[in-house]
Amino acid sequence: MSEQWWQQGCQALDMTARSQAQARQQQLTKPAGSLGQLEQLAIALAAMQGSQRPQVEQLWISIFAGDHGVVAEGVSAYPQAVTGQMLRNFVSGGAAISVLAKQLGATLEVIDLGIAVPLEPLAGVRHLPIGPGTENFAHASAMTADQLRLALDVGRSSVQQAQEAGSQLFIGGEMGIGNTTSATAMACVLLECSALALAGPGTGLDSAGVARKAEVIEIALALHRSSISEPFEILQRLGGFEIAALTGAYIACAQQGITALVDGFICSVAALLAVRLNPACRDWLLFAHSGAEPGHQRVLQALQAEPLLDLGLRLGEGSGAALAVPLLRLACSLHNDMATFAEAAVADRPL
Amino acid sequence: MSEQWWQQGCQALDMTARSQAQARQQQLTKPAGSLGQLEQLAIALAAMQGSQRPQVEQLWISIFAGDHGVVAEGVSAYPQAVTGQMLRNFVSGGAAISVLAKQLGATLEVIDLGIAVPLEPLAGVRHLPIGPGTENFAHASAMTADQLRLALDVGRSSVQQAQEAGSQLFIGGEMGIGNTTSATAMACVLLECSALALAGPGTGLDSAGVARKAEVIEIALALHRSSISEPFEILQRLGGFEIAALTGAYIACAQQGITALVDGFICSVAALLAVRLNPACRDWLLFAHSGAEPGHQRVLQALQAEPLLDLGLRLGEGSGAALAVPLLRLACSLHNDMATFAEAAVADRPL
Repeated sequence: MSEQWWQQGCQALDMTARSQAQARQQQLTKPAGSLGQLEQLAIALAAMQGSQRPQVEQLWISIFAGDHGVVAEGVSAYPQAVTGQMLRNFVSGGAAISVLAKQLGATLEVIDLGIAVPLEPLAGVRHLPIGPGTENFAHASAMTADQLRLALDVGRSSVQQAQEAGSQLFIGGEMGIGNTTSATAMACVLLECSALALAGPGTGLDSAGVARKAEVIEIALALHRSSISEPFEILQRLGGFEIAALTGAYIACAQQGITALVDGFICSVAALLAVRLNPACRDWLLFAHSGAEPGHQRVLQALQAEPLLDLGLRLGEGSGAALAVPLLRLACSLHNDMATFAEAAVADRPL
Repeated sequence: MSEQWWQQGCQALDMTARSQAQARQQQLTKPAGSLGQLEQLAIALAAMQGSQRPQVEQLWISIFAGDHGVVAEGVSAYPQAVTGQMLRNFVSGGAAISVLAKQLGATLEVIDLGIAVPLEPLAGVRHLPIGPGTENFAHASAMTADQLRLALDVGRSSVQQAQEAGSQLFIGGEMGIGNTTSATAMACVLLECSALALAGPGTGLDSAGVARKAEVIEIALALHRSSISEPFEILQRLGGFEIAALTGAYIACAQQGITALVDGFICSVAALLAVRLNPACRDWLLFAHSGAEPGHQRVLQALQAEPLLDLGLRLGEGSGAALAVPLLRLACSLHNDMATFAEAAVADRPL
């Protein structure tokens, strides 16, 4: 089998811009290190953008939506029709991410990768259905290899559009009733953890619901165990269309040189899959927040991520990433616009 | 002694607006609780503003600056002249808080309450010197009772100006070489802790410097112990002009019904003093971040604060509070602008 696009090389960071940004941070009128994580953030953005004066004004948000066959096992607090209903809400402006995108001046793209309850064509939604949701992975492979390739391609095409629009930051979001179950199943394989250790309430299961979810995941892991040694197989057998699109998008960001800001648990699992498929893409990922779902911490640790926020968020839709955008922008403003000790004639500490 | 202004009543929260905001949060198109701390933030702002649709667009930042006699004991990494030099930097736009105020569209007021190294009058600085810095509290009382009253009054007058300008949020910041030593000494008394347990690097002391700082604080605590049973006495004997102004400002915010967003360690100690002087003012305080200074966590716990950010910040100037402002604004936008389940025709979870 010839090399697939997602295995191809990623852009290199600009280490000269990185060094220059690091030197500038030392000269700004503040005690060295006193802006904490924001200093490293500005330096990382400088290295990605190859600029001493990074910016994240042009912001692109793609929401990938898809349904999950495993919902038949009773693993979600919400009915499956909500996936499609929320697509309507995204484009009519009433969803959390719609409000945030407007406030942040972001382009919001909404992509339907296949939902279970048929929906009229919606203006503002790219309908690219791969199937009527995935198969129930407690009994079968979630998707075919061809479906997975299509989903990865959708992620890449969104990043291409973001790049053509001059975006400096890409946020991927997800919508799909049941997708914490899929993400948790994949995290169990990637982190070699039991379902009981990682399963959480998702959008709002009670403890009996969480126990049921863990049980369903264990059944699925037993079924697929012999065929999930590679990340591609994990995604195919246990994933979702929207999760695969996110994985493709993160890799494409790194290949095209656009910073990706990763949202919550499901996006972080997609990011971990991206890094397993193509380790060099890690350099282009920033992590927005540590969410309420118990598996999120473990996935972030595996990615050596240092998330910016910890607000108990568990909404998805890219909303946690959107909430972190002002910190990126202000980190850039501080880096770019503060005076140096020399410019301001302020005494630095004696060395 | 007759009642002082800072002992007088605070505005009550609007519990009807609070209930309405709480009910609205339950109806928005998201799983209940999925926006974590931002939901409580919107509800708290609704209760303070007496409005179902809170806003924090009009933002006021007052930076209070003053010098500290205790710097003679060698407790800071920076020379004392930096306090005045930074006043210049605040008004010329090069300091972190200047950059942040501009980005956030805030009014930035800078007040000189008394610095040690004489400075030319600066356009844009309110020069209200109470003395050439405080006395060295390792040997004497930091200030007189009259000086303390003046400093508290300056805080109140800033809040009056903020209110006249229609501000919906007040941020107090501080600048004063040596002021973590003063704040730590007061925190030791307020929390009944040893100096070793609370002393930290401030703007950048090494471990020998931290040990020296703790030693100086213990000497001061021994000197003043018999006369610091009341918060007013603690501020007078161990405080700073800028810290007292912050304390006065936080109480005045509660009396005038303006939300105060508390910055880092020094501001949190000023807030704890405000709450000890006038417990009802606690309702009007929000806490921006948990900083790098080791005593900060303990002070926040004593205030039962739930800070929004934890980014390893230790700059002061109100910068951590400014960085949290976009979260307040976005919490309001989400609360005000998201669709309800009924409006969007999205199925809520079965009850």
